[in-house]
Amino acid sequence: MVRFGIIGYGYWGPNIVRNLNAINPEKVVAICDKSEQNLARAKRAYPNVYITTDASELLTDPNIDAIAIITPVWTHFDLAQSALQNGKHVFVEKPFTSTAAQAEELIELAERKNLTIMVDHTFLFTGAVRKIRQLVDDGTLGKLYYYDSMRVNLGLFQHDVNVLWDLAPHDLSIVDYLIGSEAEAVVATGAGHLNGHADVAYMTIYYPGNVIAHLNVNWLSPVKVRTTLIGGEKKMLVWNDLEADEKIKVYDRGVDITNREGVYEALVSYRSGDMWSPKVEATEALKLELSYFNDCVESGQSPFNDGQSGLRVVKMLEAAETSLKRKGEAVFA
Amino acid sequence: MVRFGIIGYGYWGPNIVRNLNAINPEKVVAICDKSEQNLARAKRAYPNVYITTDASELLTDPNIDAIAIITPVWTHFDLAQSALQNGKHVFVEKPFTSTAAQAEELIELAERKNLTIMVDHTFLFTGAVRKIRQLVDDGTLGKLYYYDSMRVNLGLFQHDVNVLWDLAPHDLSIVDYLIGSEAEAVVATGAGHLNGHADVAYMTIYYPGNVIAHLNVNWLSPVKVRTTLIGGEKKMLVWNDLEADEKIKVYDRGVDITNREGVYEALVSYRSGDMWSPKVEATEALKLELSYFNDCVESGQSPFNDGQSGLRVVKMLEAAETSLKRKGEAVFA
Amino acid sequence: MVRFGIIGYGYWGPNIVRNLNAINPEKVVAICDKSEQNLARAKRAYPNVYITTDASELLTDPNIDAIAIITPVWTHFDLAQSALQNGKHVFVEKPFTSTAAQAEELIELAERKNLTIMVDHTFLFTGAVRKIRQLVDDGTLGKLYYYDSMRVNLGLFQHDVNVLWDLAPHDLSIVDYLIGSEAEAVVATGAGHLNGHADVAYMTIYYPGNVIAHLNVNWLSPVKVRTTLIGGEKKMLVWNDLEADEKIKVYDRGVDITNREGVYEALVSYRSGDMWSPKVEATEALKLELSYFNDCVESGQSPFNDGQSGLRVVKMLEAAETSLKRKGEAVFA
Amino acid sequence: MVRFGIIGYGYWGPNIVRNLNAINPEKVVAICDKSEQNLARAKRAYPNVYITTDASELLTDPNIDAIAIITPVWTHFDLAQSALQNGKHVFVEKPFTSTAAQAEELIELAERKNLTIMVDHTFLFTGAVRKIRQLVDDGTLGKLYYYDSMRVNLGLFQHDVNVLWDLAPHDLSIVDYLIGSEAEAVVATGAGHLNGHADVAYMTIYYPGNVIAHLNVNWLSPVKVRTTLIGGEKKMLVWNDLEADEKIKVYDRGVDITNREGVYEALVSYRSGDMWSPKVEATEALKLELSYFNDCVESGQSPFNDGQSGLRVVKMLEAAETSLKRKGEAVFA
Repeated sequence: MVRFGIIGYGYWGPNIVRNLNAINPEKVVAICDKSEQNLARAKRAYPNVYITTDASELLTDPNIDAIAIITPVWTHFDLAQSALQNGKHVFVEKPFTSTAAQAEELIELAERKNLTIMVDHTFLFTGAVRKIRQLVDDGTLGKLYYYDSMRVNLGLFQHDVNVLWDLAPHDLSIVDYLIGSEAEAVVATGAGHLNGHADVAYMTIYYPGNVIAHLNVNWLSPVKVRTTLIGGEKKMLVWNDLEADEKIKVYDRGVDITNREGVYEALVSYRSGDMWSPKVEATEALKLELSYFNDCVESGQSPFNDGQSGLRVVKMLEAAETSLKRKGEAVFA
Repeated sequence: MVRFGIIGYGYWGPNIVRNLNAINPEKVVAICDKSEQNLARAKRAYPNVYITTDASELLTDPNIDAIAIITPVWTHFDLAQSALQNGKHVFVEKPFTSTAAQAEELIELAERKNLTIMVDHTFLFTGAVRKIRQLVDDGTLGKLYYYDSMRVNLGLFQHDVNVLWDLAPHDLSIVDYLIGSEAEAVVATGAGHLNGHADVAYMTIYYPGNVIAHLNVNWLSPVKVRTTLIGGEKKMLVWNDLEADEKIKVYDRGVDITNREGVYEALVSYRSGDMWSPKVEATEALKLELSYFNDCVESGQSPFNDGQSGLRVVKMLEAAETSLKRKGEAVFA
Repeated sequence: MVRFGIIGYGYWGPNIVRNLNAINPEKVVAICDKSEQNLARAKRAYPNVYITTDASELLTDPNIDAIAIITPVWTHFDLAQSALQNGKHVFVEKPFTSTAAQAEELIELAERKNLTIMVDHTFLFTGAVRKIRQLVDDGTLGKLYYYDSMRVNLGLFQHDVNVLWDLAPHDLSIVDYLIGSEAEAVVATGAGHLNGHADVAYMTIYYPGNVIAHLNVNWLSPVKVRTTLIGGEKKMLVWNDLEADEKIKVYDRGVDITNREGVYEALVSYRSGDMWSPKVEATEALKLELSYFNDCVESGQSPFNDGQSGLRVVKMLEAAETSLKRKGEAVFA
Repeated sequence: MVRFGIIGYGYWGPNIVRNLNAINPEKVVAICDKSEQNLARAKRAYPNVYITTDASELLTDPNIDAIAIITPVWTHFDLAQSALQNGKHVFVEKPFTSTAAQAEELIELAERKNLTIMVDHTFLFTGAVRKIRQLVDDGTLGKLYYYDSMRVNLGLFQHDVNVLWDLAPHDLSIVDYLIGSEAEAVVATGAGHLNGHADVAYMTIYYPGNVIAHLNVNWLSPVKVRTTLIGGEKKMLVWNDLEADEKIKVYDRGVDITNREGVYEALVSYRSGDMWSPKVEATEALKLELSYFNDCVESGQSPFNDGQSGLRVVKMLEAAETSLKRKGEAVFA
């Protein structure tokens, strides 16, 4: 059984601890946070767990097999590097690192040490994304045409990153998971109205074979939207993550174009059939993910959301950042 | 009273004729179409109107004061030019022309001849857009931050233009009307999956003062969406044009950022108050627009949706076309 | 071919004429209305049709095979009786008559004269109701448990009848069509707030085998609702008639109760599976219905929406009226 | 400070304890439950609280000022009676008692002993219901016409009561709170399909002055609905409790009827203006309610949700039960 030290007990850390504890209370060995107040909360909830403000205690503790890093992105590299150097497996919050170079260095180090890195792309473990992946894999949707996501709400503003680094990693990890090939080019546009960082941004990702992904992220929206359209040659779907039931609707709709010989105009025909909303499993994504991490560490199997997956997301964010500064100039990955 | 000759009685032409006829049956003098079948439909509906397949009959008829051009965009220039040369006012379908150069030539010609050009940006006459304009003008929304529109559906594929030329003119005319300044730069991305033309496209328009507009247009969507978010400093709104009632919802929501002296971190506070859905007038937009055309011609007043307005939209379309080909490179207007 | 005389060209009559005309212009022989203004409208739309304010001209015209009666309910009996006595088939607006006794007399007269009566229960010819009937007939829903409809909006107040006579006939005809057995008892409650007639009313109909129907009708609702829940042993459905697409959603949900021997408490288990929205045909209901009337008259076949069907609806309305006056006392049909 | 003994730690009890603990951990003195498993859960969450399976320990403990009774309805009377006899205040789950006679006996006993009874009509403390009450009190809605609620979902089936006793108390307590006068008569209809108890039921309540309330409760619905329409002379509202935001929408819509002298037909005119969605406070209702209980006990003030309020709800349930058995016969309260 993999025993954890958790670094970071702010907003998301408690969810990691709660799920590890639900799997097996002995998995949680120690919790580290800079804030005494956060540590007090941890102590009340888990009186038997060791707490400390000193991360190095966890990084060197022989009773700890894996370090969960749930801290701001600019701290990921140092903590993960130290953890790997001390022979610990790493479970790290998304985005993986601040730069692609850092990600590559960590991947190389983990390989050398034969250790597991898992990037916490939680959405890949939700019932909705697993169902969509299944519909892609079993050919229900047919060849993919586009992935178009809108992920907007009011706030929460972050001081150190723009809205792309905050909201886009979710969709970037999902797109990466569904499309399964590397991006060819990235275009980003946007504007900032309040604190200098972009608070409204748009990102287009070109994939081979005319597949296109588009992300609309916005911290200044009056309403919360979490809706994704996915178009395929055979079927199309709408994923509304705010729906309690019926998160996914699959439409038997499409367009067929026939170019008959000698006929100038293409013949376009539309299909419009039934809609079908498959049941989506309600298991908590994070619990599934942490169990999967445990399995990967024990079996030595590389997780699909490994360092490489994290690197691909960071590369797209870096490219988007550059493109955003250049007002939409395509940045080739 | 302005008497019309209508060229083009396909999909949209009958709406023009129906509304002119409702204002005053004597306004409709003659109808021209290349299709005998379309002309037969016109005859059944308006037995007293002269019909012909020869446009030059209308263009030279001394009983006709204005020509309504409701034909494919590539025919607009020649027909409008001829109409103006013959001393007729022009009411022309959007987009105004295929190129900015054509638009400029027509504007110059109309000025010289002291004739009126109105581009049929019908949406500007809907109750919804008029209400939004009012909320901008009276300061309810405060300084504008962004305009973000999603206008997607299944089909209808057009053979001669891509999805930008088909669906974007609506929002471009609205954005132009609301923001009231010229675009600084345009970025467009997209992909085509069926007949060579882009069927999925995204367009970002940079305006002075950090105002940004974004358009999501798509012929391959399983569902029809007509939703626009507009963010302002004081209030934000959602316009859902598919709602029968409550098309516009105004939210008393926003973000305030205070940078106190000597304090490193900006203080962000969120406002979240009531929502209010103003009643939107239900008068048919086209009827209002055609009455307004009549008034402008009779008074010699220049319409706000004049040739210049049409030119600005065409410029943005041209820029988007170029940017699309260059994978998002910003094109400066 | 059955040729019609239409009596009543107010709100609904023009739809009857338009559809008859679309099937075959020769089907419309003459139109009668008391209002000269309505007749003028008819003349403009159908210049070749004979118009008159004198119904007896139509009732005795040898060129007319059938009379369509699209007038207020209190006039139905006299007009239908006269039509039948003159050997004309009858297509009559719902509700069939003001009293069950009148309906019975007309049925008896039509049988004696070997003439067809069809009551215009238009909803039975919509794609939605036909699909629901199919789901009942093919066993998809399983044994029916309940039919629960909400049909509310603001106005339109009628001067001569209460909200039950105005809005309930739609659902009563649908329930009658789906359940296929006679009601055992009817309970109605309600209140009137403006002109003495009930403007808010509720109606429960008890059917054999524990099947229950409930109707919520209201002229004083701020929003328009047209939603029906139908529960069956195997599946349940929601029919929202205001949806453009996805009018019908079929849920694979239900409850199973097992009483194991010797166990005091019943075991309840819930099924919650996929949802499925079958495509609903968009053909105009009234056109289908009028073609069916033509077929029935020509073949001598009795329509399923015949006088008996109209009678059953009137009986339920009469019972509801009585129950309403007695504050919910069950009235046995 | 009022110190509590809580009897019942099943589904709802933990919410009571959590909120009392949040107000002040010392408020929770002891917890009783018949199930050792439930008590173990309580111990893990609140290690310092005394636990027992013997209710009499709490009922006689001199350190306890008030007993919270969160058990099945058929146990309420005995527990509350014993608590009052031992000088304890009572906070009791809804419905108050199984019969009106029991409720009256408890009220009389509490008065004699000068003790407080509060019935847990939690909904009265939600932001939504408080806002609606305010709109009634300040005259915004005008004279009330009707209250029409739909409260349906799949399960959860209860073994000892029918769907009326399970789901109707919520609305009954709200209606009682908003209308503020005693019901004149109650009519209930319904049917049971699975375990002998009604699982689908409808309830009409006649109030003085033509005010009518209607409740639609159903354990066999494929979808969850929590929607209430409230019609008033001046404005109307829709309360959708499943909406995250915009729970309440107030419509400036209505009907005016004028009877002009000498004119036979009433003149009906419709108003249709803006819609407005007031912000609803998000404070947890139960926390507010428990603080209010504390205040009432300390000040000796009688709560508005006192035993009399609980009694009025039980009377309506009893009347509905009787009416249901008699197929809708009106039962006069």
